[in-house]
Amino acid sequence: MRDISVFSGSAHPELAAEVCAHLGVPLSPTRVSRFANDCLEVQLQANCRERDVFLVQPLVRPVQEHLVELLMMCDAARGASAGRITVVMPHYSYARSDKKDAPRISLGGRLVADLLTAAGVHRVLTMTLHSPQVHGFFSVPVDHLHARRELAAHFRRYDLSRTTVVSPDLGNAKEAAAFARMIGAQVAAGAKQRFADDRVTISAVIGEVAGRDVIVLDDEIAKGSTVIELLARLRESGAGPIRVACTHGLFAGGALKRLSEQPDVLEIVCTNTVPVPVEEHTDKLRILSIAPALAEAVRRIHNGESVSALFDATRSE
Amino acid sequence: MRDISVFSGSAHPELAAEVCAHLGVPLSPTRVSRFANDCLEVQLQANCRERDVFLVQPLVRPVQEHLVELLMMCDAARGASAGRITVVMPHYSYARSDKKDAPRISLGGRLVADLLTAAGVHRVLTMTLHSPQVHGFFSVPVDHLHARRELAAHFRRYDLSRTTVVSPDLGNAKEAAAFARMIGAQVAAGAKQRFADDRVTISAVIGEVAGRDVIVLDDEIAKGSTVIELLARLRESGAGPIRVACTHGLFAGGALKRLSEQPDVLEIVCTNTVPVPVEEHTDKLRILSIAPALAEAVRRIHNGESVSALFDATRSE
Amino acid sequence: MRDISVFSGSAHPELAAEVCAHLGVPLSPTRVSRFANDCLEVQLQANCRERDVFLVQPLVRPVQEHLVELLMMCDAARGASAGRITVVMPHYSYARSDKKDAPRISLGGRLVADLLTAAGVHRVLTMTLHSPQVHGFFSVPVDHLHARRELAAHFRRYDLSRTTVVSPDLGNAKEAAAFARMIGAQVAAGAKQRFADDRVTISAVIGEVAGRDVIVLDDEIAKGSTVIELLARLRESGAGPIRVACTHGLFAGGALKRLSEQPDVLEIVCTNTVPVPVEEHTDKLRILSIAPALAEAVRRIHNGESVSALFDATRSE
Amino acid sequence: MRDISVFSGSAHPELAAEVCAHLGVPLSPTRVSRFANDCLEVQLQANCRERDVFLVQPLVRPVQEHLVELLMMCDAARGASAGRITVVMPHYSYARSDKKDAPRISLGGRLVADLLTAAGVHRVLTMTLHSPQVHGFFSVPVDHLHARRELAAHFRRYDLSRTTVVSPDLGNAKEAAAFARMIGAQVAAGAKQRFADDRVTISAVIGEVAGRDVIVLDDEIAKGSTVIELLARLRESGAGPIRVACTHGLFAGGALKRLSEQPDVLEIVCTNTVPVPVEEHTDKLRILSIAPALAEAVRRIHNGESVSALFDATRSE
Amino acid sequence: MRDISVFSGSAHPELAAEVCAHLGVPLSPTRVSRFANDCLEVQLQANCRERDVFLVQPLVRPVQEHLVELLMMCDAARGASAGRITVVMPHYSYARSDKKDAPRISLGGRLVADLLTAAGVHRVLTMTLHSPQVHGFFSVPVDHLHARRELAAHFRRYDLSRTTVVSPDLGNAKEAAAFARMIGAQVAAGAKQRFADDRVTISAVIGEVAGRDVIVLDDEIAKGSTVIELLARLRESGAGPIRVACTHGLFAGGALKRLSEQPDVLEIVCTNTVPVPVEEHTDKLRILSIAPALAEAVRRIHNGESVSALFDATRSE
Amino acid sequence: MRDISVFSGSAHPELAAEVCAHLGVPLSPTRVSRFANDCLEVQLQANCRERDVFLVQPLVRPVQEHLVELLMMCDAARGASAGRITVVMPHYSYARSDKKDAPRISLGGRLVADLLTAAGVHRVLTMTLHSPQVHGFFSVPVDHLHARRELAAHFRRYDLSRTTVVSPDLGNAKEAAAFARMIGAQVAAGAKQRFADDRVTISAVIGEVAGRDVIVLDDEIAKGSTVIELLARLRESGAGPIRVACTHGLFAGGALKRLSEQPDVLEIVCTNTVPVPVEEHTDKLRILSIAPALAEAVRRIHNGESVSALFDATRSE
Repeated sequence: MRDISVFSGSAHPELAAEVCAHLGVPLSPTRVSRFANDCLEVQLQANCRERDVFLVQPLVRPVQEHLVELLMMCDAARGASAGRITVVMPHYSYARSDKKDAPRISLGGRLVADLLTAAGVHRVLTMTLHSPQVHGFFSVPVDHLHARRELAAHFRRYDLSRTTVVSPDLGNAKEAAAFARMIGAQVAAGAKQRFADDRVTISAVIGEVAGRDVIVLDDEIAKGSTVIELLARLRESGAGPIRVACTHGLFAGGALKRLSEQPDVLEIVCTNTVPVPVEEHTDKLRILSIAPALAEAVRRIHNGESVSALFDATRSE
Repeated sequence: MRDISVFSGSAHPELAAEVCAHLGVPLSPTRVSRFANDCLEVQLQANCRERDVFLVQPLVRPVQEHLVELLMMCDAARGASAGRITVVMPHYSYARSDKKDAPRISLGGRLVADLLTAAGVHRVLTMTLHSPQVHGFFSVPVDHLHARRELAAHFRRYDLSRTTVVSPDLGNAKEAAAFARMIGAQVAAGAKQRFADDRVTISAVIGEVAGRDVIVLDDEIAKGSTVIELLARLRESGAGPIRVACTHGLFAGGALKRLSEQPDVLEIVCTNTVPVPVEEHTDKLRILSIAPALAEAVRRIHNGESVSALFDATRSE
Repeated sequence: MRDISVFSGSAHPELAAEVCAHLGVPLSPTRVSRFANDCLEVQLQANCRERDVFLVQPLVRPVQEHLVELLMMCDAARGASAGRITVVMPHYSYARSDKKDAPRISLGGRLVADLLTAAGVHRVLTMTLHSPQVHGFFSVPVDHLHARRELAAHFRRYDLSRTTVVSPDLGNAKEAAAFARMIGAQVAAGAKQRFADDRVTISAVIGEVAGRDVIVLDDEIAKGSTVIELLARLRESGAGPIRVACTHGLFAGGALKRLSEQPDVLEIVCTNTVPVPVEEHTDKLRILSIAPALAEAVRRIHNGESVSALFDATRSE
Repeated sequence: MRDISVFSGSAHPELAAEVCAHLGVPLSPTRVSRFANDCLEVQLQANCRERDVFLVQPLVRPVQEHLVELLMMCDAARGASAGRITVVMPHYSYARSDKKDAPRISLGGRLVADLLTAAGVHRVLTMTLHSPQVHGFFSVPVDHLHARRELAAHFRRYDLSRTTVVSPDLGNAKEAAAFARMIGAQVAAGAKQRFADDRVTISAVIGEVAGRDVIVLDDEIAKGSTVIELLARLRESGAGPIRVACTHGLFAGGALKRLSEQPDVLEIVCTNTVPVPVEEHTDKLRILSIAPALAEAVRRIHNGESVSALFDATRSE
Repeated sequence: MRDISVFSGSAHPELAAEVCAHLGVPLSPTRVSRFANDCLEVQLQANCRERDVFLVQPLVRPVQEHLVELLMMCDAARGASAGRITVVMPHYSYARSDKKDAPRISLGGRLVADLLTAAGVHRVLTMTLHSPQVHGFFSVPVDHLHARRELAAHFRRYDLSRTTVVSPDLGNAKEAAAFARMIGAQVAAGAKQRFADDRVTISAVIGEVAGRDVIVLDDEIAKGSTVIELLARLRESGAGPIRVACTHGLFAGGALKRLSEQPDVLEIVCTNTVPVPVEEHTDKLRILSIAPALAEAVRRIHNGESVSALFDATRSE
Repeated sequence: MRDISVFSGSAHPELAAEVCAHLGVPLSPTRVSRFANDCLEVQLQANCRERDVFLVQPLVRPVQEHLVELLMMCDAARGASAGRITVVMPHYSYARSDKKDAPRISLGGRLVADLLTAAGVHRVLTMTLHSPQVHGFFSVPVDHLHARRELAAHFRRYDLSRTTVVSPDLGNAKEAAAFARMIGAQVAAGAKQRFADDRVTISAVIGEVAGRDVIVLDDEIAKGSTVIELLARLRESGAGPIRVACTHGLFAGGALKRLSEQPDVLEIVCTNTVPVPVEEHTDKLRILSIAPALAEAVRRIHNGESVSALFDATRSE
């Protein structure tokens, strides 16, 4: 069988190393050079010929640098006659650009999928896409994992008998309902209102939260302002103690600090799809590793075994 | 300027004729033959060379016949040197197949978009896609209209001061919220529960409906069983009189009759994206025509004018 | 080596089962669902990853349903990371749409070939195409078998010393001549005449048939009216007893009954590329199985052995 | 409207000039250079930007030189921003390679069509393809003219009441029958026999020729050995005086001289799709010009008028 | 005729505005948003339908941001049904990545050309590519201008009778020779030497420079270290006063200051393909505007007039 | 592992045989037929299914014949289900057409690369491209070898202490410098001048050659007129004895004889990428075989081993 080769871009080498450790294969070195004119050049520093090449790179900040770097890694692997090129992209940030909600805008989620194809990628392994339809933006096979299992395992250590899972908005409510069923909890959701001046606020929480233990669940937390606003509504509604959970902890603009300072927030749980700088960590932060899941998926992809059999990855309501 | 030519497949010639009447152009004839071996052949019976060709065909029952017929119309127009080929597909039924919720299933929404591209289509004009992300399944430009304006104009004739718009499930709640804002109403949504035996029922209505006038809003109604179930929950919650509205009135398996027989349902409102056989019409049915909107969009596409400027088509929460 | 997986669509599961029996591999299950809006969804219910996938589906009545189903099977296999996807399509009905004999018509034979490519197929195994040029409509490798060997084996049991093979029209005469050489017989052909009102009749039989045993040979028989008309001309020419043979027995509109009722027709021979409903079978019908040939071709394709070496598939005059 | 520009390769500049004369437009100059390493370079020596560019080049001897030259003309026109590129290829010699009649052979008819697409051609205008199915080898729109009208106009000057049109083989018999109907004549065809040593001879003439005036009709005559052989069979069958006609007069290896020397051949008629060197002309040769037909087709393509309306190009039995 | 629309990305809006002023058309507004997750979204804020759209964006620092932004502008224009999309990219920095000089490296010059095609661009207008072969990396038509005319016009104001044009390395010597001929000067070139430790230095100047006025000419100056080194060699060789000239003044890492501090450098000349921050300008810097040339090229592209006729753009030795 | 199959076109069967001998595999037979209409047909006469197919064909005189033949070999291999198709093209003559140095010319280097892709090639193995950028014209992986090692090994037998490597023009000077470093020699280059009447002559030799042993090095020698002219300049400059070396010895128009007649030319060295007819050989000709290098590259490609590791193929200044 063709051997496996794993390379990491500069976005999240720790995760790549952890995946390799679980796989029991070495992480092959990549050289990324920046020329005086600010152009990048990538060199994959191990033989790729006819090998099963995996390129680990979540599209995290600085996104454009990491995206172009990833496209060059694909191009280099293709030019070096890789047998198959799989992009392992646990956070696909451009999935948020998934619809045309204004005229003449770019549709980043589809465009970046097409760019990856143009650069030579054969398949994609990703995690918790912003909406499940983004799967269909790719022309190549996609394995779409969820961190639901990791999050559920974490929360099952608590007494969940009085728990309600709350989605910050109606768009994500279906996913929240699926997670609630998984851990035997109830579900609720924030309803947003758009004002004439285009401000959006959460006007109400639809569903029962008074006196309930709350898990606020979203696919990602960036600036965290929606969650902060939701917390206010939850307090007004008499909700009990709150845990905040997401797959992708982007925590932009001091979001982690601000959330951690909320006294009724007991815990902030995310996974390591996105690297969180150590100096930003707080006592309330819990980071769950999805490296074992990624490694097992890579192993199955390489061996031609069913990925869905293990992860039951995409089943939602 | 290149002249316009409009052809209709056999799916909904009445709609095509109505669009042509609004445009003030003739409907060019199409011949669809079926050979003894059950294969189809399409002939466009008017010159297409360098013309701006519009092919009207919603993907309605029998869907596969109409789809293959449409692909052949595209192929015939391409082979006949059409200047540009626009598919006018007011109901894109395969948009419901928009995600992989089980392993090894076809992703019809993306596949059919790719088949249309393979058959030579240059652009698509469609209406109220099941999810806005389906826009991104197409490699060609899409104009995506909504019937929201037509529906809102219809309901504004009523006193809406005590009205709540109810989405049958959380997945469509965002769209219901956008419509509610448009007509100054409140919003609620049914929450579904999946049982161990894979049955799904609406377990609760999230949001206030007691004593409210209700507009049940969905993008399409097929068998209508979800709506019927929602009506039961609404009655339990003490809701007032109910109107049912959707863009695409598919009404499969006697759904229209069953809904019309509900005594507290005052009205069933849909548009003519899908033909409803006259013999199935009931007293409670109101069909709004979207032909004027389609005709205006076709006119603007042909003239190179902004479509979004008129319809503000895709803005939702 | 990558393992083999065979799936059948709903067109001809008996043939697929027979091919699998000859191969000694199980037929993997396929689920075809029809939604309330008449859209199809296909699920391949066995792991496809890196496997050598064969999808058995002749394009028989209802052709459009079976075609879309087949496209979805390809799409599902591609999305499920099949190593290679071969469509086993023993009857390619759209091959009859192989030329533009009127302006602005679809060219179904090429279009469907392109649709299959768009849906992800890597190669095609087919049988007795209406014209050998259709091979060139495909962008992917095609293995094109003939049922000539099976038909010849059948007829060699008879005394063929006074036999003439008669093609119903001049277009197929070359193939009839090849078959005649194979079994040591003579050849003749019907000549068609097109009248001003576009009626076509067989005006004459070109070649000697008086007092000869006749085998009428065509690639397919659908309504059978051409053959019926040919029989009249043969009788006028003093032909002896007649056997009718074809690869694809479509037998539309009671054709089988009508042919069987002709007293001077001794036998109607076809293969099982197309399923003939048991209730339509007549005493004169002989169905030859091409499952062994298909199975051997599949085996050779899978093993990378020469297919032409065995079947000498496409040699004609 | 975009202006028209016509360029000629080196295959048949006389025909291109004649077409331009009929169109009333100048023939734009082309420079073809050959480097010391035998590579070609083409320069189109008139502005092509946004213009409607026509490239005249039948694929005649030396075929490979003319093909590569044509591909370079397409490439040059594309790189020079031509608005549309139409190849005017009245003789598509590679159409003869239209089927796989031996294993592992190239399928030139399809390959060359794909090469033209790869080089940037947008549409093709051609004449009397060897088989009508070759139309379907092209991914771009094809206008397929026939020289039937020119040939019929020529022969109608004679008394045709006792005429039989004879096709040299069964493969072309359908076309011969169509031409016979057009001029009110009867039809017959030669039947070929392949011997064990792979020699092929015409074993018989199927149909009535004794005492008839004969027009031998083929799409092209190259070495002419099939026609010579047919003449022997016709004489044996007691046929009367003979005229030989074809669209494409290739006349390789002294064929024209040999045919002209046959005493019972009254006339050899072809068109100017292929240039015949003046020094090879004989008294019996009649060359009909298809330049008026090509010019009218070019004019209609340029103006977006129906080509089929005029030429009824491809209707055969 | 389709109207023209010019948009600018954020790379060099001053140049875009200057081009528009020369064209006499307004610069249409572009909105570039950055989300909290660092993803970009582009909105073209003027109707694009059927219009001739020009997108001005040199690939300057930060290159990756500007590249992704440009790809999104193309995607937005395509999705908005632009009639034609031309990228005006006066500095194509990735052209430097034009060969594989190490194993398994990305080939940025070709990759980025392919990405632009994948994003929907129809043609490219660029200036002074690092090597002329890079033209062939694009699948779409390229208009490749040179700043030679602007540079020559600038230097002709001086007495050039004792001038030698010096290329810093042999690779660019051909271009330096062409420029020297253009202004009636002599030519010389630096020869580089690579040491065992991979350091590269200019070991010698090949050609006569003693006592000559020198114009050092390169296509771009980034860090300027090669030029600094060349100055040392020139001094050793007894060269006279020196002027430094290039098309693309990137001036990274204080290069402009360092060059300006060289006492025998009289002048540093570049064009405005790349924006030089005002605060970095020095007394010796001369910036020539290529906006008139770009505007004239845009005008000719839009009108379908020959670009080469005016600029004689690409003729070199 | 998939087995290897090597086929040769008619361009250079001796080289193919020599490569096969080094590999220890048989050369599989190819049949190239020419029809009466001058069209080619290729048959690969050994099973290709799933095999690793190598097609050996340098693009040498007659180039167009060999190019079309090669495209057909690719097409035949693809249609015969080859597992992978590698073109071994040690001389890519069209690489010289690598830039647009005049308006509206074909760009043969890129076009032919695209044609090969259209014909189904998966990868290319080539040698000493005219410019390294041509690598980027291919959409498929390219292994680009140099004959530098073979040439260096040849010249190292001489005392090189007083040797200067001279490039005939500045464009190739970089490569000459790299070779000079490799053998410890100095470097010089001819400078060309273009006159008003478009004549080009070598006006001077830049660099020191007086009293030096000279190796004139170019990538290819065709007519040899540039070299002859350079020899005159070298003599004027007082150069010592001269050796002429190149990778591709095309020797058109008696070049070999003319060069051999120069009394101060001691030796003419080339490789066997291009066949030199035995009857043209002279006493001064030395042909170095690159068959061992090609064979080793083929072996490594087949086995998935690094090619660059051995050949360090493309490193230049």
